[in-house]
Amino acid sequence: MLLHGFFRSSASWRVRIALALKGIDHHQTCYALRRGEHRAVAYLELNPQGLVPSLQLADGQVLTQSLAICEYLDEIAPNPPLLPKDPIGRATVRSLAQMIACDIHPIQNLKVLDRLTSLGIADDIVRTWAQTVIKEGLDAFEKHLNGRDGRFSYGDQPSLADICLVPQLANARRFGLEPTWPRIGLVEKACCALPAFQAALPERQPDAV
Amino acid sequence: MLLHGFFRSSASWRVRIALALKGIDHHQTCYALRRGEHRAVAYLELNPQGLVPSLQLADGQVLTQSLAICEYLDEIAPNPPLLPKDPIGRATVRSLAQMIACDIHPIQNLKVLDRLTSLGIADDIVRTWAQTVIKEGLDAFEKHLNGRDGRFSYGDQPSLADICLVPQLANARRFGLEPTWPRIGLVEKACCALPAFQAALPERQPDAV
Repeated sequence: MLLHGFFRSSASWRVRIALALKGIDHHQTCYALRRGEHRAVAYLELNPQGLVPSLQLADGQVLTQSLAICEYLDEIAPNPPLLPKDPIGRATVRSLAQMIACDIHPIQNLKVLDRLTSLGIADDIVRTWAQTVIKEGLDAFEKHLNGRDGRFSYGDQPSLADICLVPQLANARRFGLEPTWPRIGLVEKACCALPAFQAALPERQPDAV
Repeated sequence: MLLHGFFRSSASWRVRIALALKGIDHHQTCYALRRGEHRAVAYLELNPQGLVPSLQLADGQVLTQSLAICEYLDEIAPNPPLLPKDPIGRATVRSLAQMIACDIHPIQNLKVLDRLTSLGIADDIVRTWAQTVIKEGLDAFEKHLNGRDGRFSYGDQPSLADICLVPQLANARRFGLEPTWPRIGLVEKACCALPAFQAALPERQPDAV
C-alpha cells in the first residue's frame, strides 16, 4: 500500500495511526501542501478533491477520505478493532470521530483559514476563528466522555475516536489553545503511551521539517 | 425511535431518508434553528454539540452525527443495505458520503455562514463562499462518478452516498447554484423517483414552513 499524505495533515495522521495499530506495511509519498503539490495534475487524477490522504492499493485502486480509509483497514485487518462490536457502541465511536472529522477539523483547516485570509480577515481573527471552532467542538467531546468509563474515548482500547482526537489536539496547540479538558487529557496520555501512536507522529515522518 | 431534527437541516434530511428506505417507524421532534431552539438546555443535555439530528432510542439512549446514525440504522435493519458488501465498495461509498459530510456541508452550513457575517463579511460574499465550496466539492464528486456504471452514486441501489447527495443539491440551489453536473443530475433523478426520498423531503415534514 502507498499512503499519499503530508506529515502535518491531521487527516493523513489519522490513517498513519490506523496503519500502525494494524501493523500494516506501507510506503509513503509526501506532498508539501504549502507548496501546492497536492494540486498537481498527477495527484488530481488520483484524488479529484486534491486533498490528502489517499491510500493506493497494490492493484492501483485509490481510496480517499481518512475515515473511509480507516474503516477499510478495519475491515481487511480486523485486529485490533477500531470499533466495538455492538451497534450502539459502533455508533458512539463513529459519532465521536465525526464530531472532529465533520464539525471541527474541516472548519479550521488550512484551506478554510486561507479562504478567510483572502477575504481580508486579519491573522489574529483567523486564529481566534480556529481556536473557537476547536474549543466548542472539544467542549462537547469532553461532555460525551464524562459519565463513561475507560482509559480511551470509548472503553479500554484505542478506537477510531482516539485516532481523530490526537491529531486534533495537536491542531489545538498549533493555534495556541492548550488543551485543559480533564478526560481528554487522560485519553491523550493513554494514546501517547502506545507505540502505534508514537510511530504516527508528524515529526517521525519522512517529510517532517 | 424519536428523531430530533429540523425540516431544512441537510443532516436531519439524511437520517430521514435512511429511516424511510428502511421503513423504520419513528416520531419527530422539531427545532427551529433560526430561533435557536437547538441551543436550549434540555436539548444540550441530549446532544452537547447542540446540533441536529439526534436519534433517541426507545430506552432513552441518544445517538448523534448523521452518518453514524445512518450506519447504526444499516446495522440494526440491514435491508435494503446502505453500503455494498465488499470492503472497497464500502470505502468508496463512505468516501463519497464524507466528501459531502466532511468537506462541503460543514463549511457552508448556517453556523459557519453566520460566523462569517459576524466578522463583517457582506451577504453577497458569504453567498459566494457557499457557492464556491459546494461547486468545488461537487465537481470532485462528479469526477468520482465518471467511469463508474450504475443509476445511483454507486451501482444500481441507493446508498449512503445518495443520502448525502440529495440534500446537498438542495443546498446548492438555495445558494443560487443550479446543479449542471450530468452524472449527478441522473443520480438525483433516480433518487427522487423513490418513495423513500420523496417522504424525506423538507416540505413533507411537520415543521415545514
